[in-house]
Amino acid sequence: MQVLIIGAAGMVGRKLAERLTRDRVLAGQTVDAMTLVDVVAPEAPNAFAGKVSLQTLDLSEPGSADTLIASRPDVIFHLAAIVSGEAELDFEKGYRINLDGTRHLFEAIRLAHLADGYRPRLVFTSSIAVVGAPLPYPIPDEFHTTPLTSYGTQKAICELLLSDYSRKGYFDGIGIRLPTVCIRPGKPNKAASGFFSNILREPLVGQEAVLPVSDDVRHWHASPRSAVGFLIHGATIDLEKVGPRRNLSMPGLSATVGEQIEALRRVAGEKAVKLIRREPDEMIMRICAGWAPGFEATRARALGFTAENSFDEIIRVHIEDELGGNL
Amino acid sequence: MQVLIIGAAGMVGRKLAERLTRDRVLAGQTVDAMTLVDVVAPEAPNAFAGKVSLQTLDLSEPGSADTLIASRPDVIFHLAAIVSGEAELDFEKGYRINLDGTRHLFEAIRLAHLADGYRPRLVFTSSIAVVGAPLPYPIPDEFHTTPLTSYGTQKAICELLLSDYSRKGYFDGIGIRLPTVCIRPGKPNKAASGFFSNILREPLVGQEAVLPVSDDVRHWHASPRSAVGFLIHGATIDLEKVGPRRNLSMPGLSATVGEQIEALRRVAGEKAVKLIRREPDEMIMRICAGWAPGFEATRARALGFTAENSFDEIIRVHIEDELGGNL
Repeated sequence: MQVLIIGAAGMVGRKLAERLTRDRVLAGQTVDAMTLVDVVAPEAPNAFAGKVSLQTLDLSEPGSADTLIASRPDVIFHLAAIVSGEAELDFEKGYRINLDGTRHLFEAIRLAHLADGYRPRLVFTSSIAVVGAPLPYPIPDEFHTTPLTSYGTQKAICELLLSDYSRKGYFDGIGIRLPTVCIRPGKPNKAASGFFSNILREPLVGQEAVLPVSDDVRHWHASPRSAVGFLIHGATIDLEKVGPRRNLSMPGLSATVGEQIEALRRVAGEKAVKLIRREPDEMIMRICAGWAPGFEATRARALGFTAENSFDEIIRVHIEDELGGNL
Repeated sequence: MQVLIIGAAGMVGRKLAERLTRDRVLAGQTVDAMTLVDVVAPEAPNAFAGKVSLQTLDLSEPGSADTLIASRPDVIFHLAAIVSGEAELDFEKGYRINLDGTRHLFEAIRLAHLADGYRPRLVFTSSIAVVGAPLPYPIPDEFHTTPLTSYGTQKAICELLLSDYSRKGYFDGIGIRLPTVCIRPGKPNKAASGFFSNILREPLVGQEAVLPVSDDVRHWHASPRSAVGFLIHGATIDLEKVGPRRNLSMPGLSATVGEQIEALRRVAGEKAVKLIRREPDEMIMRICAGWAPGFEATRARALGFTAENSFDEIIRVHIEDELGGNL
């Protein structure tokens, strides 16, 4: 089996390639070849036993998608996107990369389907940004997509395209609405949502972290390990069971910042909690107010998608996967 | 005030131009000029006191949209689309006309906005086809868009674009989800939904009509006069009150075929009803099963959009507007 990962240089893409390297099997078949693609050079995973091809290209450039489809990959993970903040600042780039890039990919597959019946599994990473405030809690699976960012709009449009191309039989697609990935490894970044990870990741290694919002802010989380698990499960399950509504809000953990901090206290003690410095930021608080507090995710759970059940667990996953199991 | 109607040769477009000709005023301002555009030559309305410009062009052709925006119309009604059946049969044409055409228009307006601050009111006709079975009855305003046709997908995508371009301030848009327009004037056509109109329109003039489904089929209707009323109201209301969720399910009348027939009996008597010939058609029955039975339309009603309250009224509107008031 041949696997294509578009957006392979990103955090989830790298972890997905590592997982496939470890598993070596996807949907009951041996992964013989992986093609890793991104706009910046992706790294080859350590010790993959099959063939790895690395490509640097921009999906929004004419012809790029056709190049990727030429070898007829069996499973395509499409993770490539510019992030929310950038899509908001650069309207044209957001639509070009996040919408047109995806549409080029879908069209290349459709034309290959018409040519020779090619019909891959396509796993697309969507986002909880497809919904927009005011939001109920929990948000039901049937809630409408009324995004309040260009990024969320682009993801919602790609979801609609994915359903339609799947319904027509051009590919067998599934859209995975990822919760906010927490604890995000790496350094603190300037993303407005960065603090959800910062306030746990930094204190776990003895570093200070800034908390810009109040303790009662509620949000929707899953670990990087769960995020990769969703994608693998999406590539594996029988899509007949999913039916025509191909875009699924993933399970996750709804928690307040206060609950995150209590979990940190239980796992790493008071000295870790003391490293959190409260520095209220009006702008971040305003942005946060529009974010999803949590989803029912009834359909996804029934289809076997699973996530963490407590923030203690999310922290332990981070310690295992990023800190070698040691605190 | 300058008004542009794209899709002016269609049934609703023609009636809209006639209404503006009669009213001569829109949103409190005199309509000085109307530009009527379609892929087939539109007709000039009778006796419009202002300037009329007729144009035949295809919005999906590069440059077409820029031509239309050059004169900076104050209000744009975008009604142009290929219909559901054609979009389903010709995938490429459907996306080219219904999605790319609309996007060209939106982009032309955005570029004009960036050039000189132009920011028109834009009224877009969406459709109840943005929802797909299984459907609750009534369908709430917050119900998700999971279309089961390419046409519905294209309309749902344009709704998302309309909200995002409006949010960014490029234009002031509103999306009007039209119910099935009934009684549609003209001759019986081959649209699967044609019978809803045929079984009333034809018997009213002494002609036989075929009913291919059972009496308990429930659907969502509004008269052509109401459809035009929605567009006029959409061009007029304060969009601050609408907020960021710019696409509204219009009010309408939820009725079964049996209730339609009873209304016909009350208005035109038993001899009209006897002209309905029952000829069950499995395919049409199957297609119908996926259609919307009715919407709550709570938001649209609160915003002052109104439709008929009975099928007797819908039939009387047809008699007034199409049969000169005489039965």
